[in-house]
Amino acid sequence: MKFLFTAMAVALVAATAFAAQSIPPDLRETALAIFKPLPSIPEVTNNPRTPEKIALGKALFFDPRLSSSGVFSCNSCHNLATGGDDNRETSIGHGWQKGQRNAPTVFNSVFNKSQFWDGRAEDLKAQAKGPIQGGAEMANTSHQVVETLKSMPQYMEWFQSAFPGEAEPITFDNLTNALADYEATLVTPAPFDAFLNGDDTAIGPEGKQGLALFIEKGCSSCHSGVNLGGEGYYPFGVVEKPSANVLPENDKGRFAITNVPEDSYVFRVAPLRNVAITAPYFHSGKVWDLRQAVATMGTTQLGEELTQYEVDRIVAFLNSLTGKLPKIAYPLLPTETAATPRPQSQILGK
Amino acid sequence: MKFLFTAMAVALVAATAFAAQSIPPDLRETALAIFKPLPSIPEVTNNPRTPEKIALGKALFFDPRLSSSGVFSCNSCHNLATGGDDNRETSIGHGWQKGQRNAPTVFNSVFNKSQFWDGRAEDLKAQAKGPIQGGAEMANTSHQVVETLKSMPQYMEWFQSAFPGEAEPITFDNLTNALADYEATLVTPAPFDAFLNGDDTAIGPEGKQGLALFIEKGCSSCHSGVNLGGEGYYPFGVVEKPSANVLPENDKGRFAITNVPEDSYVFRVAPLRNVAITAPYFHSGKVWDLRQAVATMGTTQLGEELTQYEVDRIVAFLNSLTGKLPKIAYPLLPTETAATPRPQSQILGK
Repeated sequence: MKFLFTAMAVALVAATAFAAQSIPPDLRETALAIFKPLPSIPEVTNNPRTPEKIALGKALFFDPRLSSSGVFSCNSCHNLATGGDDNRETSIGHGWQKGQRNAPTVFNSVFNKSQFWDGRAEDLKAQAKGPIQGGAEMANTSHQVVETLKSMPQYMEWFQSAFPGEAEPITFDNLTNALADYEATLVTPAPFDAFLNGDDTAIGPEGKQGLALFIEKGCSSCHSGVNLGGEGYYPFGVVEKPSANVLPENDKGRFAITNVPEDSYVFRVAPLRNVAITAPYFHSGKVWDLRQAVATMGTTQLGEELTQYEVDRIVAFLNSLTGKLPKIAYPLLPTETAATPRPQSQILGK
Repeated sequence: MKFLFTAMAVALVAATAFAAQSIPPDLRETALAIFKPLPSIPEVTNNPRTPEKIALGKALFFDPRLSSSGVFSCNSCHNLATGGDDNRETSIGHGWQKGQRNAPTVFNSVFNKSQFWDGRAEDLKAQAKGPIQGGAEMANTSHQVVETLKSMPQYMEWFQSAFPGEAEPITFDNLTNALADYEATLVTPAPFDAFLNGDDTAIGPEGKQGLALFIEKGCSSCHSGVNLGGEGYYPFGVVEKPSANVLPENDKGRFAITNVPEDSYVFRVAPLRNVAITAPYFHSGKVWDLRQAVATMGTTQLGEELTQYEVDRIVAFLNSLTGKLPKIAYPLLPTETAATPRPQSQILGK
């Protein structure tokens, strides 16, 4: 059964900012109709997920030699030590170039229905091909990264174990396939999952009040599903356009992919797991304070000035999305050989 | 007893490049008079080494927020996944600036008598202060890095545990103190140590021949002690100056520290543990092939064209210095707060 606040109750909350938000008795049932606890990890590539492939994917994820300069690994911008992102507005890449959009966390990204802020990659495998070849990111080519891996006997062995029976196991497709399968293991069960799964003590009263508000105010209309986002597409500024600082004019989001005018300033809904440890916020990375981010969402997406009380509760709820980060053994990477292409740090065209 | 090849034996080896190098029966005793197996880890700071301090040091080592941009950690240039260095001629730092000299491995660096290629830091603690504040490296200030750490409650807790009883545990000195104590744990026991410790099978016949040659030819006059280097200072080009490519004219080495003309092009002897996995070589990082590096040392330091046979054996010996790298649990780092200084990526003065 879905719970609905009566008009009177809503009016009361709005009128008295410090009145305690009630916790609906059927909060879990209501939440389960909107959100989902973390499921088991899905198969993400058309190649069986094996321990060998995951181990290979992990090595690749941490290997800076995937970049032409030898400076950046996947982990540089999606740092597993700091919430799976890089704590910057936008990332720094090859030649000190700045990325256009905030680096999202890799944790739980397997549950997003598409990848990147504009959803231009259908899955993690397609996503991985972007930054490796992005001129302002890792600035490599598919050919050169394959040559780099082929030059190291240890990688040859690992690819053979991960893709048994293939005559040429080291390919760009297999590289991104292994990366995707490793990334799919990076999930972070959170107190909110425990709550959804039946543990009433997993979230405190403030968090529960926040969850009720999150649903009642309409946040969950977009931020739903297992990742509380990462599914649909909506304009940033449904009701009121954010400031040009937060929503830079030159980044029209999904419009650049679809060329449909209605997609101007449309972005994939941000997934909210681990949001409390992955500041700064929005595609522009311009907001560092989660409370401010929540308030901004109130005005731009809901057309509502959330009270301090409401913001506090919603943030308490969002804190319950901070998951248990996996323990990771730092990999030991293959040694280069005379055949390994040398790091290139010049910027093409300069 | 020290073994000495007779003049005749030397002449024989020189005359027949492919004659098998004999393995002196007292090779271990001779080697033990010149080298030392890895000792237990020394105390490196005037503050007891505790598990809490080592854990803190590890977190700091991996934390990119020690750099003003949030891009570089100690591990960026001293990557524990790739031999403790970055596999580049010289490192890339803040603003894509290039370092002046090749980044040396952090592994076993605690056993060097001084740090940096010119020995300008007396120990690991003094060393750590360099890159953090280096404008072309991490480009931070001691004040700002302390503010950064202080802004995160988890770091406050960790510093309190590591430096109990101190009213202000987060200081630049304590930061570098913890870093140094962590780095001191990064040692890599190698087959050569097993050989020195009595295991005859730890090194094969080619490696033993190489060790005999390494001593006989005079390499061990400089590359001695526990790190096979890292102690004395010698000019690069004792006998013959290397090419300007390998020995750039504008880097006069220790002269910049001492201002003594005799110190022109003088560098600290490179320590050789893990040399096979830490290309490229020399302070300039201009030589990628270990065989070429050995041959270059022959001509520049010994005034001798080593034969292919000799180079191969010496390289086989150097391979026995590749140690067992420690297994490292990748740390989970504290979360930033509103008080954490924001990443700065601009280059000062530009």
